[in-house]
Amino acid sequence: MKKYEEMTGSEKAAFRRDALVKYNAFKAMGLNINMARGKPSCEQLDISSDLFHSLDETNCRSAAGTDCRNYGEMTGIAEAKALFADILEVDPKNVIVCGNASLTLMFDYLAQCMFDYGDHIAWSRQEDAKFIAVVPGYDRHFAIANYFGLKLVNVPMTPTGPDMDLVEELIKDPSVKGMFCVPKYSNPDGYTYSDETVERLAAMEPAAKDFRVIWDNAYIVHDLYDEGDHLKEIFSTAKKYGHEDHFVEFASTSKITFSGAGISCIVASDHNLDLIRMRLKVQVISYDKLNMLRHTNVMKSVEDVRERMKKHAAILRPKFEAVLSILDEELGGLGVAHWTKPRGGYFISFYLDRGSAKRVYQLCSEAGMSMTQVGATYPYGVDPSDSNIRIAPSYPSLDEIRTCARLLCAAVKVAVSEADV
Amino acid sequence: MKKYEEMTGSEKAAFRRDALVKYNAFKAMGLNINMARGKPSCEQLDISSDLFHSLDETNCRSAAGTDCRNYGEMTGIAEAKALFADILEVDPKNVIVCGNASLTLMFDYLAQCMFDYGDHIAWSRQEDAKFIAVVPGYDRHFAIANYFGLKLVNVPMTPTGPDMDLVEELIKDPSVKGMFCVPKYSNPDGYTYSDETVERLAAMEPAAKDFRVIWDNAYIVHDLYDEGDHLKEIFSTAKKYGHEDHFVEFASTSKITFSGAGISCIVASDHNLDLIRMRLKVQVISYDKLNMLRHTNVMKSVEDVRERMKKHAAILRPKFEAVLSILDEELGGLGVAHWTKPRGGYFISFYLDRGSAKRVYQLCSEAGMSMTQVGATYPYGVDPSDSNIRIAPSYPSLDEIRTCARLLCAAVKVAVSEADV
Repeated sequence: MKKYEEMTGSEKAAFRRDALVKYNAFKAMGLNINMARGKPSCEQLDISSDLFHSLDETNCRSAAGTDCRNYGEMTGIAEAKALFADILEVDPKNVIVCGNASLTLMFDYLAQCMFDYGDHIAWSRQEDAKFIAVVPGYDRHFAIANYFGLKLVNVPMTPTGPDMDLVEELIKDPSVKGMFCVPKYSNPDGYTYSDETVERLAAMEPAAKDFRVIWDNAYIVHDLYDEGDHLKEIFSTAKKYGHEDHFVEFASTSKITFSGAGISCIVASDHNLDLIRMRLKVQVISYDKLNMLRHTNVMKSVEDVRERMKKHAAILRPKFEAVLSILDEELGGLGVAHWTKPRGGYFISFYLDRGSAKRVYQLCSEAGMSMTQVGATYPYGVDPSDSNIRIAPSYPSLDEIRTCARLLCAAVKVAVSEADV
Repeated sequence: MKKYEEMTGSEKAAFRRDALVKYNAFKAMGLNINMARGKPSCEQLDISSDLFHSLDETNCRSAAGTDCRNYGEMTGIAEAKALFADILEVDPKNVIVCGNASLTLMFDYLAQCMFDYGDHIAWSRQEDAKFIAVVPGYDRHFAIANYFGLKLVNVPMTPTGPDMDLVEELIKDPSVKGMFCVPKYSNPDGYTYSDETVERLAAMEPAAKDFRVIWDNAYIVHDLYDEGDHLKEIFSTAKKYGHEDHFVEFASTSKITFSGAGISCIVASDHNLDLIRMRLKVQVISYDKLNMLRHTNVMKSVEDVRERMKKHAAILRPKFEAVLSILDEELGGLGVAHWTKPRGGYFISFYLDRGSAKRVYQLCSEAGMSMTQVGATYPYGVDPSDSNIRIAPSYPSLDEIRTCARLLCAAVKVAVSEADV
């Protein structure tokens, strides 16, 4: 394909006419497709129908004999800890299994940091406390930081992880208290941190003694291909430097079983877990152990989880590949946009090389396709380059996804050509 | 029975000998009975075995069509709101249905109050913020206040509710920010607030404009007899005074279905709900809607709930009556203790008229009976009269309960007689 920049005036005019015809054809279809969130499709949820039949009144005790219907076991049942430990390659003693949402756990962990406890000085009492936002990133992370008044400082994401030179510079400032990381199949780029990045993160010597990395391992087993990305385990890496306390890890089965009714976990160092338990003792009596048992009855090990994830991949992979092949076909070589090609996770990150993401979003919306709000992948909703669009191919059907991808391409072409009108 | 005080020296000596013989006989039995918490028994949990069969992959949509397996419906499904609204006699629009624990919701609500939001000034930034503790009361309420650094001020409980003269005096102080109430079958006394008390609470004009009553309606349908206590509904009462914002209500099915795997709710004014939703939008994507549906499939209305509670009452009532009749038989007229006779809830409150609760607790512990830590029913674990013992008859079997009650009486007699040795 000829680069848009290299087209003659009349070629550009023809390009624009053609784009408008295609875009208007989509608009005339009266579409109503939601591609805004990383939400599993119904077929994916059907994979876990076995959860409805894995538990009844005859088997509601844990292996240790706890009646899971009753109070007790504040930190979760042993088999659920073992399952997450197996998935995350950590020691079960460092795992607490909780309710249906790891987002809530991250919120609660930052809430904990906002108060004094033990020898920790409340971040809310510290001048100008900041958090590093790897951008583009997950809007809900940014929302949590905003809620607690933590100022966000952008660090660009790269194919090997956050720009570590910049991170290492920023953490010299003691008011920089931590950072959010989605280390595997990052949201929205789908990049996985390289071994070197993990090593550098583990080795960091932040000026803030209470520096915390929110290690949101949301997509740890969410490979689209048999050969998934490899992520170096953080705690064993951090241990070499005596830095286990810098990291608090979160994961859930939201995109393994049911997004609204899974189980979640916190993984932390012995020291940090002691402090988390101090809070939990006040905040909860116990989490839903029946739901833990429902899960562990159908997934005994990470191998069982991987089997389940292959079924997800069989549904998701064609959707990702459809988007990517349409983008290649329609925009490849045009020199107006680029995009990531993730091997797992829930998103494709699309970048307009000369801005106009907002305009593309508007055009798509007007044609009946909801996407993640442009800017949402940046703190305060502001993408400084107006470039990034998060594509979430999981929920719509494969046919709808193809339509969405074509519509997106048409909208991109319209937006690009507008600049020359 | 002759009053202990009126006994002669030799009668007292005989009384002591007899008490020691009985107590030592219990001690020799090598008991191991846990009466520490208000925990339902296995038979009670069996009542709700239908919950294991109320949901599968063919019926996991809410009435409105929401796929309850997926994300969405942050404030809960309509049928769950309707159920709690029916139980609590409030408008479903003022209900948010959440996870398995109302304790967590209370913790989170106070956490919210500790920060600035809207026009609210963080309690953590206000000098010497205080909360009223109705005593004796629920240790976990006090623990939440302590966690957030709210100083607790004791107000005595009476058979008609908190000492309202004192409450009305205390709220003239703008640093008094709220109070905890268990208005029906209070923990541990089992008293229900009278209509006059509810009216006076509703009418209060606290100096603190952000005064909040944590209305923990944990035992709203937990009657032991067909004719239960009546509790005046708080929001309709507060409405007359324009004071709906003063109250935030909490309830759960923890002691209706499964204590570890029920559903819970917050009820609040339109204004307060707006603020709670602002927080929830950051903290959660959605609560476990499958568990909501599991519940609403077997309980469509408060009548269904009442039917279920009658089954609980059939198990609990004999336990309460066994304790009360043994206390009457062994200690009635002795003039050393008195106790409450609740018509619902989970506890009997026992008072040693001249102190020595700690000693009784120690004697019972040494004989293998765990009770709620003495002092726990007061802030900071300090019962100024060393008088109150919380009896929790729900979990042990009826036979065990009889043994516990007899052991308690023997321990009381030993402790009382020690004072004269």
